[in-house]
Amino acid sequence: MNYEMMIYVIMSIAKIEGLLLFVPSLVSLVYGEYKTSMQIAIIAIVFTIIGFITTIKKPRKSDLFTKDGILIVGMAWICFSIIGSLPFIITGSIPSVIDALFETVSGFTTTGSSILTNIEDLPQGVVFWRSFTHWIGGMGVLVFVMAITPLVGSSTMNIMQAEVPGPSVDKLVPKTKQTAKILYTIYIVMTLLEVVFLMFGNMSFFDSLMHAFSTAGTGGFSNKSNSVKYFDSAYIDGVITVFTIFFGINFNIFYLLLLRKFSRAFKSEELRWYLIIIIIATTMITINTYSVYGSVLKAFRYASFQVVTVISTTGFMTADFNLWPSFSQAILILLMIIGACAGSTGGGLKVSRVLIIFRYMKSEIKKIIHPRSVNNISFEGKVIDDSTLRSISAYLILYSFIILFSFLLISINNFDFQTNMSSVITCINNVGPGLGKICGPVGNFSSFSDFSKIILIFDMLIGRLEIFPIILLFSPRILKRRF
Amino acid sequence: MNYEMMIYVIMSIAKIEGLLLFVPSLVSLVYGEYKTSMQIAIIAIVFTIIGFITTIKKPRKSDLFTKDGILIVGMAWICFSIIGSLPFIITGSIPSVIDALFETVSGFTTTGSSILTNIEDLPQGVVFWRSFTHWIGGMGVLVFVMAITPLVGSSTMNIMQAEVPGPSVDKLVPKTKQTAKILYTIYIVMTLLEVVFLMFGNMSFFDSLMHAFSTAGTGGFSNKSNSVKYFDSAYIDGVITVFTIFFGINFNIFYLLLLRKFSRAFKSEELRWYLIIIIIATTMITINTYSVYGSVLKAFRYASFQVVTVISTTGFMTADFNLWPSFSQAILILLMIIGACAGSTGGGLKVSRVLIIFRYMKSEIKKIIHPRSVNNISFEGKVIDDSTLRSISAYLILYSFIILFSFLLISINNFDFQTNMSSVITCINNVGPGLGKICGPVGNFSSFSDFSKIILIFDMLIGRLEIFPIILLFSPRILKRRF
Repeated sequence: MNYEMMIYVIMSIAKIEGLLLFVPSLVSLVYGEYKTSMQIAIIAIVFTIIGFITTIKKPRKSDLFTKDGILIVGMAWICFSIIGSLPFIITGSIPSVIDALFETVSGFTTTGSSILTNIEDLPQGVVFWRSFTHWIGGMGVLVFVMAITPLVGSSTMNIMQAEVPGPSVDKLVPKTKQTAKILYTIYIVMTLLEVVFLMFGNMSFFDSLMHAFSTAGTGGFSNKSNSVKYFDSAYIDGVITVFTIFFGINFNIFYLLLLRKFSRAFKSEELRWYLIIIIIATTMITINTYSVYGSVLKAFRYASFQVVTVISTTGFMTADFNLWPSFSQAILILLMIIGACAGSTGGGLKVSRVLIIFRYMKSEIKKIIHPRSVNNISFEGKVIDDSTLRSISAYLILYSFIILFSFLLISINNFDFQTNMSSVITCINNVGPGLGKICGPVGNFSSFSDFSKIILIFDMLIGRLEIFPIILLFSPRILKRRF
Repeated sequence: MNYEMMIYVIMSIAKIEGLLLFVPSLVSLVYGEYKTSMQIAIIAIVFTIIGFITTIKKPRKSDLFTKDGILIVGMAWICFSIIGSLPFIITGSIPSVIDALFETVSGFTTTGSSILTNIEDLPQGVVFWRSFTHWIGGMGVLVFVMAITPLVGSSTMNIMQAEVPGPSVDKLVPKTKQTAKILYTIYIVMTLLEVVFLMFGNMSFFDSLMHAFSTAGTGGFSNKSNSVKYFDSAYIDGVITVFTIFFGINFNIFYLLLLRKFSRAFKSEELRWYLIIIIIATTMITINTYSVYGSVLKAFRYASFQVVTVISTTGFMTADFNLWPSFSQAILILLMIIGACAGSTGGGLKVSRVLIIFRYMKSEIKKIIHPRSVNNISFEGKVIDDSTLRSISAYLILYSFIILFSFLLISINNFDFQTNMSSVITCINNVGPGLGKICGPVGNFSSFSDFSKIILIFDMLIGRLEIFPIILLFSPRILKRRF
């Protein structure tokens, strides 16, 4: 294992995070929160200096094995989260260490589950940092680092593969670093566009920025306790709905559009199914909640917003879907599990994984009858090989096991079944709100025990990093084995 | 496809069921229920005659392909269930056709979920038939047919493979029919032993027989509305606990014991883990429910009974576990999913499948780090080949999909999340009671809509026949393809 390189990457990350923390410090300064500004500035200065000093000397060997890449990602995210929680703790906004870590991990993993009950009481600098974590985490902490520093040498692909959501990563251009830069440019431009559109709806610049950060990262934190419902504007709901759909799409498609390769972009099977699922789910919930709203238009407005925010794993709220019929709630649970497209900022299993596994199951059923038939599963025009099918199956099974095991541990809380199950599903899929009174759309995670919060912190990380980087950190026996 | 043979097998089954129906008719006669006795006798006579006439001529070709075997099992179970529901309908015990079918399928699949609210009001002949369905279904309808008729020629193994629970079937002796006979002999002797032991606890012969049928098939129907709680006897609880453990064990082990091959019997990994899981779960629930009962002994009595009855997927009840802490309920949910041993009368995923998949997942995690490492997963001393691993993975994924899809459809009922989810889990694993007030240990399934009952009927069949025989019946496109 290349320890030197691992330490170098983690220290680079500390440095970047130190630099990033100057932004909320500045925000606090602008809002006249001098004490908060100072407190955040101190954290920023400390980590910037430590980071700079420890990364002066580049490691001699910059090669990374797959294993190193995976481990670096796991450790980097944990370190990044710990540093990121300091502003909450030191400013006294969230006095409990576990709570602060929960909120930060929920931010970076773009989950959006919160333990805060009165967001409006926090200093603006802290509110900014909270939403900013979504934006940073959405594209991946290490992809971010790769985009702006002369960091890594040859095998950065291993890092990207471990951090970017979905079963496989396509490099847009031969160089990983170049790919990261293109992705971030698209990300920044789209975020700014959303800010502009939101401001047209009479949203303040600050509120627009906070909600754009949250949409872009498919996070779900709002600087209003009532989430997007606070604004109660069909225009704002519409803008957020459209941008949420966009941020749930594989970014490669935007790149293809930029290159004017329209036909290739629209041929994407994943995109097509992502949109089909959204349309079907919205239609079904609109019909199902018609009795609640008494108007098709109103039902459609809330249904479409909630469907999109849940499948993209953002988790904003304009309607208390706890009051919806069980069928609509069940659809939302399935959408949480399906999740967004691979290569987007969204979580969940990803539409492509679900599609591939569906085709795989169909072929396995066929195989029962025609045992000598050959698998010929194709996706996006390519034949999927056996080892990919195998690893996707393993992913799904591990994912189910982790959900069940987490559900068992969360049950120690002695909350109701719905709360226990939906809190795990919402956290591992990085959605945000669960079902029920406690952790549902109008509730929050403050009443969970510290033990439960720790389990959910791991679930969020496991979901965001797609299981292995976190699991491997806890498999010392596997790691120690020579190869 | 060998249609001639398929019809022959199904008609043989109708004949056998006709003959079996004389037993409840006789029971009604003994209890002086002359009208009920007559009604059941008529059904018995009709199907016996139809069956005898249509099976006089043996089919010319008795060969069966895998596909035929699977389809025969699926269709046979559906026909058997429809005929089996007639006594409930014609005697007026369960006037609704869907309800009667639900109760019969729940019986034959050894689920034990009931739509009856007042079992004590039914004629004894009908009560007998209800419990008798568990006993018949436990070992498999077709295995039963094979054991007592000169039915099938060469490829009966395909039928047995599709009907006997678990990932693989070991033939005890070279001939399938002989194997079926040995299994049924063990089954009958153990059932009679339980009757004797129960009668020592001052249970009437009839009650003992009903509960022995139910234990043997790991079903869960009781002729008391209050289930085993009615007797409120630690001795009876103990006898049922011990026999329930026995009937959840692979019957091959009893055969090995009969042959005095003790060391081979006790070397079974599945048996060891089955017992380990029971011990761990009982310990945890005893500790967790200590606060409810205020006495370790009492907590242990109810915990052990409930753990055993749930993991074996029997589903009797001595304690209302809805009043237990969530953690204990979560353990029960996991036990429902794990289920009993392969080759027993129990349902669920089966301990062996869970063990194999755990080892498989461990090796897949290792593979991430050492991509060229070779799978070397062994179970019961044998190396598990890739195709078995593949089919077990596919089984697990399909199983999860079916649970989620059924959950979505059941939600149309607009019951609570816990009821929707636990009713599906308890039915597909053939356990019996779910969680919550509606379908929990003291509730029943009468308030579910007809649509939901139909979904649950399919879930019970899918669980009992391990997915494929039922799924294939609904895949006409797959079946039609030439090969």
